[in-house]
Amino acid sequence: KKPHHAFSLFSSSSSDIDLSDCLTNTITDENELRANSSQMKNRMEAFITNLQGKIIKKLQSFEPETKFKVDRWLRKEGGGGITCIIEDGQVFERGAVNISVVSGMLPKAAVNEMRARGKTSIPAGKDLPFFACGISSVIHPRNPYVPTVHFNYRYFELEVAPNKFEWWFGGGTDLTPYYLDENDVKHFHSELKKACDKNDKSYYLKFKKWCDEYFVISHRNECRGVGGIFFDDLDKPDQDKVFEFVKSCGNSVLPSYIPLIEKNKDKGYGYKEREWQLLRRGRYVEFNLVYDRGTKFGLLTPGSRIESILVSLPQTAKWTYKHEPEVGSEEHKLFQVLKNPKDWL
Amino acid sequence: KKPHHAFSLFSSSSSDIDLSDCLTNTITDENELRANSSQMKNRMEAFITNLQGKIIKKLQSFEPETKFKVDRWLRKEGGGGITCIIEDGQVFERGAVNISVVSGMLPKAAVNEMRARGKTSIPAGKDLPFFACGISSVIHPRNPYVPTVHFNYRYFELEVAPNKFEWWFGGGTDLTPYYLDENDVKHFHSELKKACDKNDKSYYLKFKKWCDEYFVISHRNECRGVGGIFFDDLDKPDQDKVFEFVKSCGNSVLPSYIPLIEKNKDKGYGYKEREWQLLRRGRYVEFNLVYDRGTKFGLLTPGSRIESILVSLPQTAKWTYKHEPEVGSEEHKLFQVLKNPKDWL
Repeated sequence: KKPHHAFSLFSSSSSDIDLSDCLTNTITDENELRANSSQMKNRMEAFITNLQGKIIKKLQSFEPETKFKVDRWLRKEGGGGITCIIEDGQVFERGAVNISVVSGMLPKAAVNEMRARGKTSIPAGKDLPFFACGISSVIHPRNPYVPTVHFNYRYFELEVAPNKFEWWFGGGTDLTPYYLDENDVKHFHSELKKACDKNDKSYYLKFKKWCDEYFVISHRNECRGVGGIFFDDLDKPDQDKVFEFVKSCGNSVLPSYIPLIEKNKDKGYGYKEREWQLLRRGRYVEFNLVYDRGTKFGLLTPGSRIESILVSLPQTAKWTYKHEPEVGSEEHKLFQVLKNPKDWL
Repeated sequence: KKPHHAFSLFSSSSSDIDLSDCLTNTITDENELRANSSQMKNRMEAFITNLQGKIIKKLQSFEPETKFKVDRWLRKEGGGGITCIIEDGQVFERGAVNISVVSGMLPKAAVNEMRARGKTSIPAGKDLPFFACGISSVIHPRNPYVPTVHFNYRYFELEVAPNKFEWWFGGGTDLTPYYLDENDVKHFHSELKKACDKNDKSYYLKFKKWCDEYFVISHRNECRGVGGIFFDDLDKPDQDKVFEFVKSCGNSVLPSYIPLIEKNKDKGYGYKEREWQLLRRGRYVEFNLVYDRGTKFGLLTPGSRIESILVSLPQTAKWTYKHEPEVGSEEHKLFQVLKNPKDWL
């Protein structure tokens, strides 16, 4: 395994910089990415931009008549993003895979919050230069038998002293079915476990539990879905190894999810199944607007691109007073699992 | 004008206690309300319970085939509420008028927050007995030409020392149209102004401004609707006068809103108008889940009745990426007013 030296400006290695599937120009100029291909921020940007392209191409293959829209946008403060969205497809009612690459000065209030979260090597009380990039996606299929999927992988870098950087990765992939097919859920979790196990045998159990704890609609006392993996602030054992892990996770999105689309997308359903799906989508909206940290952070950040943040919401959601699935019904079977998260493997 | 002596236990006056329109038993036993009819908490509970009945009876008259459901519920910690909801009506797609009457011990964290908000006569650092009651309503009509209305009037009492009470009233009424009919908005505001003017000529302008400032979807930089009135912490000039004002406001709900239903409920509309209405309802969901203080407080309070809180949400809401009403269209006309709140009278 070839060693990577982060922040060495003159590495000739560019093995990480594969942009062959990108949908449009990268946010950071491609020449710069290649010239500084040993810097983690460039390796991660290249990885997520290419992964976005790979995933969109696969999803697009289900939609001969509806094209994903590719919106490349730039922030005047630095960086930008590529929002890639489909609406009103045959298979996908609404879905997006976005990347964003942002840099600038992090206000000291946010710096202090990071310190308070346990990163004591961050100096308190001043603005610091930061870099953040990530890929983020929610896919809401039309057919109630195809689950909604969400994933997000991100890298954060803070320059705590001239040329001295704090960094960490975060992310996860999780599934929100409307009907419970245990085989589907097992397949999904087993692909995530495979991606974890390749890197550290302790990861899957730890990050599966974290996911169950994070995606809780507290006021309903129920989970958003059947989980997956979730982690944050990951900076051990070293930068290369964490990046390898994040790549394994990113690359497991298609094998974990695509078989669920293929298997279920043409199943017949009626009014009852659609109504239940829409009610559950109401719950999805509740979680994202009330609890999701990324969404809340985005909505409260002046100048953030709201339309890119809120692509996570479904096209349609419904609310009904005191809806309770009938005991013994298929809806109830799912509901029980949302009330009591279980082990799938 | 007959003087009221708050907290005198032996007043024989019961002129405030008119329960003739109530839909079901009051939360506090009717005999107790009448026996202590000079206490503000009883006068306010009687007023809101009767007002709920009056409003529901009027709204029900538009719905020969769909009945409002009346759900009386009790909390084991004390008090309860009456949730009154219609769904799938001909005129009302989803709408509710609720009251709640709650008492118990307010945790010191909440007490300290009230202190921090400026109520320095509240002693810091200990749990205190409280009483709160209020009426709260959102009506989402089916026809896009009938605006959504929201109102809420509440009374809060804190026992800061044995038999020594801090108290205040809060509330407001506001309108969220999907299409702008200036005459409707003017009618609505003029009824609110009448209710204000009867009590204090300075109220309307002050509380109209407060309303415009409160109902802002900050991340969209737009208002939820065309405003109305909003006030909080009102405890001057004295308890009777504030209560008189709150009664004027509560009693202005029907005259301000019913003519808008009557005028518009049978207008023809098509796919375009319905879609626009659903998008705006998405914005309503965004405001209520992300910003509304009452909703957030409710969702974060363990043991609160979630189904009663979330009746404020529409039955159906939609989201579309980067939807922009066409310049010059009727949708755009409304949009402009939401971006720049104006004076209606």
